[in-house]
Amino acid sequence: MINPFDDVYFMKRALQEAQMAFDKNEVPVGAVVVMNNQIIARAHNLTETLNDVTAHAEMQAFTAAADFLGGKYLKECTLYVTLEPCQMCAGASYWTQIGKIVYGASEEKRGFRNLNTTLHPKTKVVSGVLENECGDLLKRFFIEKRNLN
Amino acid sequence: MINPFDDVYFMKRALQEAQMAFDKNEVPVGAVVVMNNQIIARAHNLTETLNDVTAHAEMQAFTAAADFLGGKYLKECTLYVTLEPCQMCAGASYWTQIGKIVYGASEEKRGFRNLNTTLHPKTKVVSGVLENECGDLLKRFFIEKRNLN
Repeated sequence: MINPFDDVYFMKRALQEAQMAFDKNEVPVGAVVVMNNQIIARAHNLTETLNDVTAHAEMQAFTAAADFLGGKYLKECTLYVTLEPCQMCAGASYWTQIGKIVYGASEEKRGFRNLNTTLHPKTKVVSGVLENECGDLLKRFFIEKRNLN
Repeated sequence: MINPFDDVYFMKRALQEAQMAFDKNEVPVGAVVVMNNQIIARAHNLTETLNDVTAHAEMQAFTAAADFLGGKYLKECTLYVTLEPCQMCAGASYWTQIGKIVYGASEEKRGFRNLNTTLHPKTKVVSGVLENECGDLLKRFFIEKRNLN
């Protein structure tokens, strides 16, 4: 039997969130938190809207997921995020003890991998899911920004 | 002329915040953000109260300071925090471009220094201000916790 709830399915939901960020003139990064094939939190980058550099999609998604569950830890959850998390978000994921992180596009400069941020030992990582779609949205955003300035 | 607004003065204010956390049965870490010798944000750890691992004192202080200033960046500001920031908070400080971080007690295991979190190149760091007072409050908290369990 085909399972429709695979990594691509949930990354598409994260991409919808990224598109919402795009439409608000925010750097288009989106995230969902999934537990037992159910989305329990959705968020997109709101750093400009909230005037707050901590308002990355992942941070809001962690807060919303914990609120939904009524517990601080996300051990049974997976974070889907369109861009590789930064040090702050990867550092937050350590505290959540999240089970899995799936990300789309890589972020060579500010991503947690090249900066060697320590994840929780129980957190698994999958990268490159819908990498091109996730990356293209970001590229399109920055090209449009450049053309407007 | 003696300047009463030195690092010890502001760390004492951060310690007052840490004491408030202690009184709420929260891990006692406190922070203030200072600009031109004026405290523009105060916060203490609220991870239990808010059921949110991202509610570290520093994260809330950054958000509050940016809100006060009406701008995302804290280039002219100093963060005083009673405990060495973790990866998440140090990662957040990168995005704020904060001018200076002053902390009290060191955190060998989860602190940003041993975990090699990258700070913003313009962020200066001072450590060990009221180190014993800051550390003692934490020790007292964990001893009381242990005795209650």
